[in-house]
Amino acid sequence: MKKYCFGVDVGGTTVKLGLFDKEGTILDKWEIPTRTADGGKEILPDIAQALQKKLDEKGISKDEVVGVGIGAPGPIDQEGTVYKAVNLGWGVFSIRDTLSGLCGLPVRAGNDANVAALGEMWKGGGQGYKNLVLVTLGTGVGGGIIIDEKIMSGATGAGGEIGHIHIQDGEEDACGCGNHGCLEQYASATGIVRLANRRLKATDEDSVLRHGNVSAKSVFDAVKAGDAVAIQIAEEFGEYLGKGLAAIACVVNPQAFVIGGGVSKAGDILFSFIEKNYKKYVFHGSRDAKFELATLGNDAGICGAAKLILE
Amino acid sequence: MKKYCFGVDVGGTTVKLGLFDKEGTILDKWEIPTRTADGGKEILPDIAQALQKKLDEKGISKDEVVGVGIGAPGPIDQEGTVYKAVNLGWGVFSIRDTLSGLCGLPVRAGNDANVAALGEMWKGGGQGYKNLVLVTLGTGVGGGIIIDEKIMSGATGAGGEIGHIHIQDGEEDACGCGNHGCLEQYASATGIVRLANRRLKATDEDSVLRHGNVSAKSVFDAVKAGDAVAIQIAEEFGEYLGKGLAAIACVVNPQAFVIGGGVSKAGDILFSFIEKNYKKYVFHGSRDAKFELATLGNDAGICGAAKLILE
Repeated sequence: MKKYCFGVDVGGTTVKLGLFDKEGTILDKWEIPTRTADGGKEILPDIAQALQKKLDEKGISKDEVVGVGIGAPGPIDQEGTVYKAVNLGWGVFSIRDTLSGLCGLPVRAGNDANVAALGEMWKGGGQGYKNLVLVTLGTGVGGGIIIDEKIMSGATGAGGEIGHIHIQDGEEDACGCGNHGCLEQYASATGIVRLANRRLKATDEDSVLRHGNVSAKSVFDAVKAGDAVAIQIAEEFGEYLGKGLAAIACVVNPQAFVIGGGVSKAGDILFSFIEKNYKKYVFHGSRDAKFELATLGNDAGICGAAKLILE
Repeated sequence: MKKYCFGVDVGGTTVKLGLFDKEGTILDKWEIPTRTADGGKEILPDIAQALQKKLDEKGISKDEVVGVGIGAPGPIDQEGTVYKAVNLGWGVFSIRDTLSGLCGLPVRAGNDANVAALGEMWKGGGQGYKNLVLVTLGTGVGGGIIIDEKIMSGATGAGGEIGHIHIQDGEEDACGCGNHGCLEQYASATGIVRLANRRLKATDEDSVLRHGNVSAKSVFDAVKAGDAVAIQIAEEFGEYLGKGLAAIACVVNPQAFVIGGGVSKAGDILFSFIEKNYKKYVFHGSRDAKFELATLGNDAGICGAAKLILE
């Protein structure tokens, strides 16, 4: 009888792996390095080997395993084909077929942000919702869209690339993608630092942010301490993000937005800045979307990957 | 054996009805008035009666009919529940269960714009695509989103309300929805007239548009005749619409945008203004989306409704 499954989350420096039971309990988790040399050709063989080792260690036979779910950074379509994952050195090939051939188990693959969204729906901040958008505020702004409990990967795996919605005309700095005025330039951790530095330059007002390192964390710590300049920065952040999420709602009308990534460590205070701006810009039919914090942290990827193969 | 199905498209003044075979051929189509008095309580009974009359006329038994698909204006979820259709006087109730009870046939219901998108995918400009966005440029801007050949209706039936994406800060005129700066205010037929009047006021340059009625049609006719002011208006229209479609692509990454509604009668010339702006703003992963014209016109609704029940 099939009792187990694996969830794998491929990152630029480490691969996270998890052994799950079918109810989603993590029985074991561990990491291996991501070997990106030579077009990342060792990554999948390394994973297959790590899985086999775990089966041996636990005395589990392949007959007892439903399969392997895997998330990786880059556009990956529903059939498990990746279209260039720059961080891993990968070109275009079927992750599903390649890994399945290596480990002798069924495999399903998805984009890491989408897979994390599935994880949050299953076991995290998105529990109880069938339609949600995971908004990951980290170095960049990532997104994962779940429609009827399934990942919406888009035609070429670029669904949920919400960090690159054009949100501001006249921006002079370029986004990592080459465009100007992307949501990511204002709502990511680095975007918040940019907003902060601009604001500190534009005003003479004193602020704790003038006396230390400026980071997304220090900005929201200062907000909590009542720092007026920090509050202005957070308002600006909320204006951009609220506007962006309102645009997303006009397209997919989710039940909830689940906010994750490093910036989300600021906690509930984020919502006070995001929600009022969201409500200002959103179409009334989507006005009642809920806002939740992601709760799985680094486990979202392996959880979502496990769910992918259990579907 | 089941050979037939009905497609019904409820509009504010008339209800369009079609009898189809299972391959999607329209065998007959006709209209009845939409009686919106008394909270629109006669609309579904009128439809049930019209369908029965057609069955009698053609000598078709109910056993030969797969069912009835119906599209109506307003948010309608996957289960066929409508959440207030203002134009029809409807409150919240199950269209599916009510109409099915009245006509003794299986019923599926959807929002009219979404249903039209399904129609265009099946028999119109979207043939060959599984993921598409129908963009209807009429009095307003409507949208219908198809993911993996299915309507994406959203959590509360407000999926695809793309006309209300906030696209411009600082707009002083209000949109019909109450917000300011919605895509609909620039890219609908009425939006184009607004842009035209603004442009004619801002410049002294002569234009054929100064010597007649200004409409979306007259603007694009003037564009075709090489009128410089009309071209500026079309450029502005394309800038707004291209930016809006780029935002949509960052969310759902469609294979194609299918452009319909009255404005689309201008034809292929629209694409020259939309596509370059789309490419300017879009994330590279969605750069290759195709642009097509809708081809079904007023039949998109009944076709899509028929497809809904055949799914």
